[in-house]
Amino acid sequence: MKFKIPKTPAVRVKGKSFRLAAVDPDAATPFAHKRLSAEAAQPRLLVLRQRLCVLQEMLYAEHKRSLLIVFQALDTGGKDGAVKNLLTGVNPAGVQVTSFKAPSEEEMSHDFLWRIHARTPTKGHIGVFNRSHYEDVLVTRVHGLIDDKTARQRFEAINNFESLLTRNGTLILKFFLHISKQEQAERLQERLDDPSKNWKFDPNDIKERAHWDEYQHVFEDALRHCSPDSAPWFVVPADRKWVRDLAIIEIVVAALEDMNPKPRPVNFDPKQQVII
Amino acid sequence: MKFKIPKTPAVRVKGKSFRLAAVDPDAATPFAHKRLSAEAAQPRLLVLRQRLCVLQEMLYAEHKRSLLIVFQALDTGGKDGAVKNLLTGVNPAGVQVTSFKAPSEEEMSHDFLWRIHARTPTKGHIGVFNRSHYEDVLVTRVHGLIDDKTARQRFEAINNFESLLTRNGTLILKFFLHISKQEQAERLQERLDDPSKNWKFDPNDIKERAHWDEYQHVFEDALRHCSPDSAPWFVVPADRKWVRDLAIIEIVVAALEDMNPKPRPVNFDPKQQVII
Repeated sequence: MKFKIPKTPAVRVKGKSFRLAAVDPDAATPFAHKRLSAEAAQPRLLVLRQRLCVLQEMLYAEHKRSLLIVFQALDTGGKDGAVKNLLTGVNPAGVQVTSFKAPSEEEMSHDFLWRIHARTPTKGHIGVFNRSHYEDVLVTRVHGLIDDKTARQRFEAINNFESLLTRNGTLILKFFLHISKQEQAERLQERLDDPSKNWKFDPNDIKERAHWDEYQHVFEDALRHCSPDSAPWFVVPADRKWVRDLAIIEIVVAALEDMNPKPRPVNFDPKQQVII
Repeated sequence: MKFKIPKTPAVRVKGKSFRLAAVDPDAATPFAHKRLSAEAAQPRLLVLRQRLCVLQEMLYAEHKRSLLIVFQALDTGGKDGAVKNLLTGVNPAGVQVTSFKAPSEEEMSHDFLWRIHARTPTKGHIGVFNRSHYEDVLVTRVHGLIDDKTARQRFEAINNFESLLTRNGTLILKFFLHISKQEQAERLQERLDDPSKNWKFDPNDIKERAHWDEYQHVFEDALRHCSPDSAPWFVVPADRKWVRDLAIIEIVVAALEDMNPKPRPVNFDPKQQVII
């Protein structure tokens, strides 16, 4: 990751002293400084989306490297919305989205990275993980399925795994969508109050909400241990959806611009080819 | 397939007497009758794209059925362009695109539907096949890898396989993008003349072009044998890209409108849920 990270409200996690509580989920600086608001950000968003389309085509034409974008958040944190708003407008043939659910029996019969590895993006593609291998150091810890020692071993396994991918030409960007407990309450309530959103509500979310503080702790621990320069975490203030979306696309486009993908060279002489 | 097929230049294949040569690759009727042109079609295209977005979200919210769209064509027929122009603007999280290449050694060690079955769309998703199981009754026949008897057995296997999918809630729409030999020559030449398109050119396309008539024959045979009401083929005049794209999205949207997906009912009482 040599690319110049653009100035957004998102915080790049670096070092073991990182504190999640120090990031305000409602932050809008420096966007707000630039007099941006949900509406005023639209023109910039459009420019970035068009640019993302072009860069995706070039990545595909190059057919050498790939991009993996990981989204993690607490329930209602906005993972679905972030995926949709980042990638709608990009050719779906160039995008591979995987939404990881609770593992199946077959998946549980392997190591925790087995099912993840199978879904890493192919050359020339943008892969998106809606949830990921990080679930295995989050929900499992909160519910006491693994102890701290196992968690540390998994952090190491994750770093080794991600290093394998990055050395093979996959750029990894990880986004933690950071919402406040109050914002989560409002979003859950909205899913109950609006009949057209009922299907998005899972009664289990209320039980998980009771573990709020433990989730903040295990997230912070994972972010601290697994954010090397080659596969950094960004904590994205996500109480305001427009701030979340603009911050993410700014970072993704800057990273792709730095990759600067070009169509692959051809191994024939175009002038020698004759169409009969 | 009970949906009312909209009037487009595309021809729905029905019956063993279907003749591919009877479809003009440059046809634009009835679009042209309606005074549509590449530019004049834009407003209609925008309306259909917005509707497709909404229908995809509903299909996802319903989480019960799925849609499978199959694209086949000769080289430069416009499969990539058709996928891009149909689905760019739809949330990529709801779309699963598979571009089938020459089968790998592992894939060849199974029956010809094994790798196809693995990529059928999951509930609530739109699956897109850029090439498909039909390659196994096309390129294989032209190059004499299978005889006519095997081809007929494969037609039966394909119909049985597609019937399994449709009975499981997958709507199947198949599009053959029909170009003229002259149009292919122009498109191949363009890929040679424009350096930015060189990477799209494959010298092997020239060899395949020499088999033009045989490809027309085997395509016609496959279309005739594998176009039941439940999984119909449409032959899309594809010399004009705007005709191709508008015809396809008209048919896809009409089919989804007829499916009329609705968010799945919830198994809890929203009023009884308390967010603490």
